[in-house]
This record gives sequence, C-alpha cells and structure tokens, in this order.
Amino acid sequence: MQRIQNIVLATLSDNSDDYGIIEDGVVIIDGESIYWSGPAVEAPATPAATVIDGQGMCLTPALIDCHTHLVWAGSRADEFAQRLHGKSYAEIAEQGGGIASTVQATRAADFDELLRLASKRASALMQQGVGTIEVKSGYGLDLQNERKQLQVARALGEQLPINIKTTLLAAHALPPEYKNNADGYIELIINEILPTLAAEGLIDAVDAFCERIGFSLEQTERVFKAAKAHELPIKLHAEQITNQNGAALAARYHALSADHLEQLDENGVKAMAENGTVAVLLPGAFYFLRDDTVPPIKLLRQYGVPIALATDANPGSSPIHNLPLMLQMGATLFRLTPEECLRGVTVNAAKALGIEKEYGQIKAGMKAHLALWDIQNPAELTYQFGVNPLKTLWLNGVAHDREDTL
Amino acid sequence: MQRIQNIVLATLSDNSDDYGIIEDGVVIIDGESIYWSGPAVEAPATPAATVIDGQGMCLTPALIDCHTHLVWAGSRADEFAQRLHGKSYAEIAEQGGGIASTVQATRAADFDELLRLASKRASALMQQGVGTIEVKSGYGLDLQNERKQLQVARALGEQLPINIKTTLLAAHALPPEYKNNADGYIELIINEILPTLAAEGLIDAVDAFCERIGFSLEQTERVFKAAKAHELPIKLHAEQITNQNGAALAARYHALSADHLEQLDENGVKAMAENGTVAVLLPGAFYFLRDDTVPPIKLLRQYGVPIALATDANPGSSPIHNLPLMLQMGATLFRLTPEECLRGVTVNAAKALGIEKEYGQIKAGMKAHLALWDIQNPAELTYQFGVNPLKTLWLNGVAHDREDTL
Ligand SMILES: [Zn+2]
Ligand SMILES: [Zn+2]
Repeated sequence: MQRIQNIVLATLSDNSDDYGIIEDGVVIIDGESIYWSGPAVEAPATPAATVIDGQGMCLTPALIDCHTHLVWAGSRADEFAQRLHGKSYAEIAEQGGGIASTVQATRAADFDELLRLASKRASALMQQGVGTIEVKSGYGLDLQNERKQLQVARALGEQLPINIKTTLLAAHALPPEYKNNADGYIELIINEILPTLAAEGLIDAVDAFCERIGFSLEQTERVFKAAKAHELPIKLHAEQITNQNGAALAARYHALSADHLEQLDENGVKAMAENGTVAVLLPGAFYFLRDDTVPPIKLLRQYGVPIALATDANPGSSPIHNLPLMLQMGATLFRLTPEECLRGVTVNAAKALGIEKEYGQIKAGMKAHLALWDIQNPAELTYQFGVNPLKTLWLNGVAHDREDTL
Repeated sequence: MQRIQNIVLATLSDNSDDYGIIEDGVVIIDGESIYWSGPAVEAPATPAATVIDGQGMCLTPALIDCHTHLVWAGSRADEFAQRLHGKSYAEIAEQGGGIASTVQATRAADFDELLRLASKRASALMQQGVGTIEVKSGYGLDLQNERKQLQVARALGEQLPINIKTTLLAAHALPPEYKNNADGYIELIINEILPTLAAEGLIDAVDAFCERIGFSLEQTERVFKAAKAHELPIKLHAEQITNQNGAALAARYHALSADHLEQLDENGVKAMAENGTVAVLLPGAFYFLRDDTVPPIKLLRQYGVPIALATDANPGSSPIHNLPLMLQMGATLFRLTPEECLRGVTVNAAKALGIEKEYGQIKAGMKAHLALWDIQNPAELTYQFGVNPLKTLWLNGVAHDREDTL
C-alpha cells in the first residue's frame, strides 16, 4: 500500500462541476487501484503503507488525451514551410502533399518504425502527466495498414505503462484506390476492415470524418450501423468546417463523443445532451488552422453537455503533441474556465472514451492513475505554460518520478 | 577539442537570409569557442579531438530568448481564473490584482526565493535549447527591488551554465508611491536607480514601456538620454496597444531593438531600418491577449529590418515560458517563414542584445553555444511542437545531454 498525504487533492469528482478540492487530503493506493481517498482527518490508519509526503502540492487524476492520431510516418514540415512561402493548398495537393503524403508514408513504414515514432510522441505526453491516450487509425485506409496502425497502438500500451484506447477511423479520407468511389470505400470498411479488425480485438471504438470534404451524413450512418452491429461504441469528427448535422446523428447512435464542433448548432447540442454524448473540443486544430468560429460553449454549458479537451495530435491540422497547452488554449481561445479545462482532460475525457468507471477521477475503486504537480492551485495547470510542474505520475499504482535533465 | 561530424549544419549565417545549411558539416570546438566550421570535405584534421557522431541530425546555434521578464514572485493564476469566470479587469485591479500584485509579491520575496523561482524558468528554457536569456527588471520599481531583480538575473548566470543579459526596465509601470506622479518617478529612475545600478555593473541595457497606459514619448526620451549618458544601449516596449511613435524615437537613439510592434507604421519601420534597430516580435503576448493586429511583417521585410522572436515570459500578458512554441506561433499567427522564425531566435536575437559578434551563428571564433536536434530539416523546429527534439546543448563548449525521464 502507498499513502500519499499532505496534498491538495483535486478529485475531479463527477458529483461537482469544479475541481472537487479536498484541501488536506490523503490517497491510499492498494495495488493498481485507489483504496481510499478523502480528507486527512477521516483517513484510515495504514501502518504498513509506504508514505509519500506531497509537501502541500496538488494531486489530480492522471490526464487523459481522448483524441489523437498518434501513429503516422513522414514529415509535413516541408509542406508547412512551402505554405508559409506562399504556395497554395491546391499546389501542394497536386504535388502529392496533404493527407495523401501521410497515408503514403504510413503505408510505407513498417511496424517497428511506426512504433518507434509513436512511442516518442506517447512518451512526451506521459511526461506532461498523461496516463491514457486514445489513438485513431486513419492513415492506412486499407485492411492491412489500418490493422498495422491499430497494432502499433496496442503495442504502445505494452511498451509504455500507459493506457491506450484504440479507435478505427478508416472513414478518415478516401484512399487513392477509391478515388471518386467513396461509396465503394465505405463498403470496404463495413464489409471487410471493420469486421476483420473487430474480430481481432483491435477496435475499442469507431469514428468517421463527416464533412463536405470527408464523408456524407449517409455514408457516416452506414459506418455507425456497422459499428453497432459489432457492438462497438462510436465517435465522430463533426461540424469542424461546415455544419453537416453529424453530431445529432452521432448522438442518436448514442455516440461517446462528437469532436471539433466549431459549427455545431443548438439542435446538435440538444441531441448530444439528451444522449449523454461528450463534446470533445480541439483547440490545437482551431489554433493551427486559424479558425475564427469558436465552438458554442454557452449552449454546451446551458444544456449540460460534458466538455472534454484533447490534442488532436496529427501531422496535418494539429502538430501539437502537448495536452497541457490545450488547457491553456482552451481557456485563452475558447474562454473555458480552468475548472472546465481540467475536467476536460480528466473526468469528461474519460466519459468520451467510455472508461469513466475506472479513470478520470480520484475515488475509491478507480485505477491509481494519479499526477502530483508542484503547484498549490489547480488553475496553474491552465494558466502557465512552459515550466513543467509534474513531479510524479502513478500509472496502475506504480510511481514514475519526473526529473529534469540538462 | 571536440569534433562534431555527420550533421546537417544550420549555420544561421549573417551572410544569408535562410538557415545557412551545410548538408554534411563539421564543427570543431576548442575550449569555449568554435575553432572551425564548414563542409566535412574541407575540415582540417583533428587527431586529438573527442569525436561526436551527429548521426545525420541537425546542429544549430543554441537558441536566444531576447525578451523575458523572468524574475518575479506571486501567482496570477487565480486572477486568470476570475477573468474567465467573468470578472472585469477593472474589478481585478480594484482588488489589487494585475501588475500591482506582481510588484507587491516581487518586493516581498527575498533574493533566494526569487532565484529559486527564476531558476526553474531558466532551466525550462535551457531544456528547450536556449543558451542565452535576456532578463528585465521592472517588478521592483524602486532602487532596492530593481537591484534585487537584476542581482537575481546575474546569479542565474552563475548558477546555470547559460548566458544572461540584464535589462533595466524600471520604467515599466508606476510604483504605488508615485501614483499620479509619473514625472517624479522618471526623475527617480534617471537620478537614482539607473546611475546607481549602472555603477554596480548590473545593467547591460535600458528599456521602457512607452504606451498610453505606460510612459509618454517625452518621458521615454528622458530615460533614453540618461541611458546614453551612461553609455548603455537601449531597447523599447513600443507600439503594442497604440502607435506612440516609440519605435522611431528608439531608432533615433540607435536602440538595439524595439519590441512588440503590433501598431508600428511605415515611418517607424523606416527609422528602424535606417538605424539597424531589430524588431523583436512577441507572439506569446499577441496570443494570450487575443490581439488581432499582426505586426507589419511585409513592411519589416521590405525595408530589411531584422526580425527576432522571444517569449516575453511574464505573469501578466505572456505566461508562456517556451521559446520553441514562439517559433510555432510566429509562423502560425504571424505567417513568418520557418527560416525567419529560426533566424529570429538565433542571429537576429543576438543582434537584439548586441552580442552578435559572439552568439547566434555557427562560425569560427564565436562562442561554442550549439544545439543538436533529432531532426533532419530545421523547419521541424517551427512546424511541430510537443516532442522535444533537443539531444545535446553545448554552452561555452561544454556538452549537456538531455534525457527524458519518466
Ligand atoms: Zn481528429
Ligand atoms: Zn515585455
């Protein structure tokens, strides 16, 4: 047993809408799980426990990055430079740039190379206090390469002490083999890719990109039906560039989350609220694409839709593998409160992944996924950026101390 | 001697306007300085040297953060949270918030506490590849506390292997003792604070905040005259919120730099160009304040004004202690090219500090301040953010390896 004491405990309890603070708290870990948490004055005796003195620092749940595209190869840095030198998107697409270049490089990379690259990114997230990462496929776009991406995601969870949730995002873009044949590709997904990889246990959830430049509402619904047939929960990239009413569709299918949502309208918000669908906001993509339409935060608050925040880490629209920066951007760009930001990467991010019974709060019975920060006020996690305050990250009850080298 | 070979060398040479790339380069370090650098085929033999195999990675000058307010105490996180919960600036100022709270906390903190806090921030910058940091005073606002801030800055340079340049920014805000008496405070600065601290060797440059809510053009000029009387170079916070023609004034006094510059007009740009004054752009403050007026990049390019980028690290308007993020923001928010961004934190940042003879380029005779990055294309430093590619930082010829722990 481990007993963490002398801490400001931010439980992120589901019973509150703020940090769920216990000023002088104690957390007792038994094996992989939280055995007890609460005020020091009520804490049970634990004579045989290893005692950790938190020195008045703040303990939160380990963070959860509930939307990433972490497994990819190639580099889009040169394309980025070309755009800044005045080349248009069209010119870059013509020379094979954009998502096509990432698909090509990801298909060409072998498993070990993809794992090496993804592992660097996951390690960086872990150093920021992240204990759970959702990883989407969507740069393979055929059976073999979607499988490879999801296998790499699973391997990440074996190689690192983090918790990985996989999402099949075969309906991310049209592969070159199906140019001008989106319906044919949807057939491939629902008849071959999804059933095969589901049977192989590689899929925790199914996602799609519902957008004018992605897949139609009707095509999206066919993917959802296939997911439901395999009893897989769904998620959706919705209402990022245009309002396709994707979030409302996803909500009707009891989606775990609808993500992006810059163009979401009140009907979509209502549908999400009625079905318990989480709004996953992605300020990194908003920032990188220089979007100027903020998601409808007031409506989300008004209807009580849980808000999560994630990196959307990907080489095209959010090459920003940093979850704490998303808290800073969530507040600065979207005017979320620090409480909403921290709930967005803990309790609500867990809901967006369907793992809220085990992760995202500090509560007896949950996994001992905890982060100790060298701050007194949890608002610091949203306010300041650049000096990493993480001291110790517990994953499944095992403590990992962070030390600055150099 | 050390011989770094098998590297993509980004010299950031003053003779080019890009990275100054040498594809297969060699750098030879002798003691604290660069003895030779150039293409491998031309490199002299160095039989007794320690050989470092760069494995095809990219070597740049160590980065330079040429505008920070690193020495401060207190926390503005709570104030930040209050603003996001709907409190106005006026309400927060009334309850003693804003810069007044930082001045109060910085005055109350002793030397050791300030050094401990600043050291964390400087260490974070060093882990990002930064070897030189400019540190401004300006939260003391009286002789004793401005001295304390600058002494802490000097101590930082003793405690860490980094290079520190100090700037007296006594004309940052009005101290409570001089409420409604700005001219009286300017008298105090030019008759007491500046001469005393200059005599104590604590001042490398003199800065002021020329703004409607800061000091007038006339008051600024009095500070400049005093600086010139002590043969100290000048810098200026200019044209951030309104156009006060501060940059043109600074340029007439041959300022090293004018900083912020969102509202700079063509006359100001011309004056800067004529006098070799560097434009220090601060995208962190632009981002954090949700500014929508981008500095006049086209004019700066047209007239050939050197552009630098810095963090402006401070608790009020840029709580972002991360220089690589400023490259990402310089490109995304200001549309600077990756070449301009990297020049902005190396060769041009050195000019903004008057240290361009010794720092900011890879060139024989310069200080061996070098950064080795696990990338092949220097554009990666601007494009991606979150996975820290720094492998080794040489400061005065001493190699510091970075390792990820956790
Ligand atoms: Zn996405
Ligand atoms: Zn400043």
